[in-house]
Amino acid sequence: MSDSERETRHKARMARKKAVIDAHIAAADEERGLLLINTGNGKGKSSAAFGVLARALGHGLNCAVVQFIKNRSDTGEEAFFRDHPRVKWHVMGDGFTWDTQDNAQDTATARVAWEQAMVYLKDPAIDLLILDEFTYTLKYRWLPLDEVTHELDGRPAMQHVIITGRAAPEGLIEIADTVTSMELTKHAYHAGVKAMPGIEW
Amino acid sequence: MSDSERETRHKARMARKKAVIDAHIAAADEERGLLLINTGNGKGKSSAAFGVLARALGHGLNCAVVQFIKNRSDTGEEAFFRDHPRVKWHVMGDGFTWDTQDNAQDTATARVAWEQAMVYLKDPAIDLLILDEFTYTLKYRWLPLDEVTHELDGRPAMQHVIITGRAAPEGLIEIADTVTSMELTKHAYHAGVKAMPGIEW
Repeated sequence: MSDSERETRHKARMARKKAVIDAHIAAADEERGLLLINTGNGKGKSSAAFGVLARALGHGLNCAVVQFIKNRSDTGEEAFFRDHPRVKWHVMGDGFTWDTQDNAQDTATARVAWEQAMVYLKDPAIDLLILDEFTYTLKYRWLPLDEVTHELDGRPAMQHVIITGRAAPEGLIEIADTVTSMELTKHAYHAGVKAMPGIEW
Repeated sequence: MSDSERETRHKARMARKKAVIDAHIAAADEERGLLLINTGNGKGKSSAAFGVLARALGHGLNCAVVQFIKNRSDTGEEAFFRDHPRVKWHVMGDGFTWDTQDNAQDTATARVAWEQAMVYLKDPAIDLLILDEFTYTLKYRWLPLDEVTHELDGRPAMQHVIITGRAAPEGLIEIADTVTSMELTKHAYHAGVKAMPGIEW
């Protein structure tokens, strides 16, 4: 096959692809608030949510973040976003389960954070709400799944919500619009590299 | 099992978990620039890179972004980041292959963007470089893999690089430190929902 034949075939293949994609785009015409879940054991669940936060702010949206596990306020993302006039940022965790080692305390902490989240879930002025590391509150049964799905279903029609964390339960996945599973293929940490500021936190 | 027995067992299990995790953290003591790849067919590859960009800026790092496919400058992420004094932002694509339908033009476009990327790959003042949608330049053979891996290997020792895009080739994965595959579990777009500003772009 000559170069010009190859170019002609490439052009024809791409023209067919474009027709299929354009038809899909035309068919997708509903507008509403989305529920996105970033789950899986890989990296990027929270950072993808914070990337969307940047994107949403770039479009002028009002945003809120509730962090359910994290109890440190020295992260790069918080330093970067917390003073933005259209972001409300709440670090409401108590650290990891293996740090607290106290299930009753973890349950109480999760409840307080969830009360804060519910304030935003009733507020149509919030366009994007990020519930960071929220899945653990369900995994460890600190919060009842049916209460959570009920509140999510009842939120303002145009409000987007992003939930992050490993092991998202089936009942949450059922009501979500978009679910991504971040899978770990390779991790520098296992090769002995320290958690680098600006990359890992 | 009584509640107090359950609490005692939980505490013991978490104490064992903490010992294992603390030992791992102590063993990971190497500091260097990382090569991260976000690949797979799911969402979040670019947004996870932009979330890390926010994190890196929060830690005071100097950053650069080269977009290899995108040719639009109306994205939320660009609006949000482009005026930041520690970000250099380059939209250098020509659109998707099915839009250009011209392989020779795509090859030339990729080369120009790669020349810009190489300027940063030789500059130790750049702490984080994002090569967005870069994998397609390798998939379509617009750039030779061995040239790319050679330049990545020779970059400044403390420089982090994040590469995004579907179908990262094996030769790139081999030299990466951390590789995440974003897998699509469910997507609102397939249910007829329009690409929402602030979420999809």
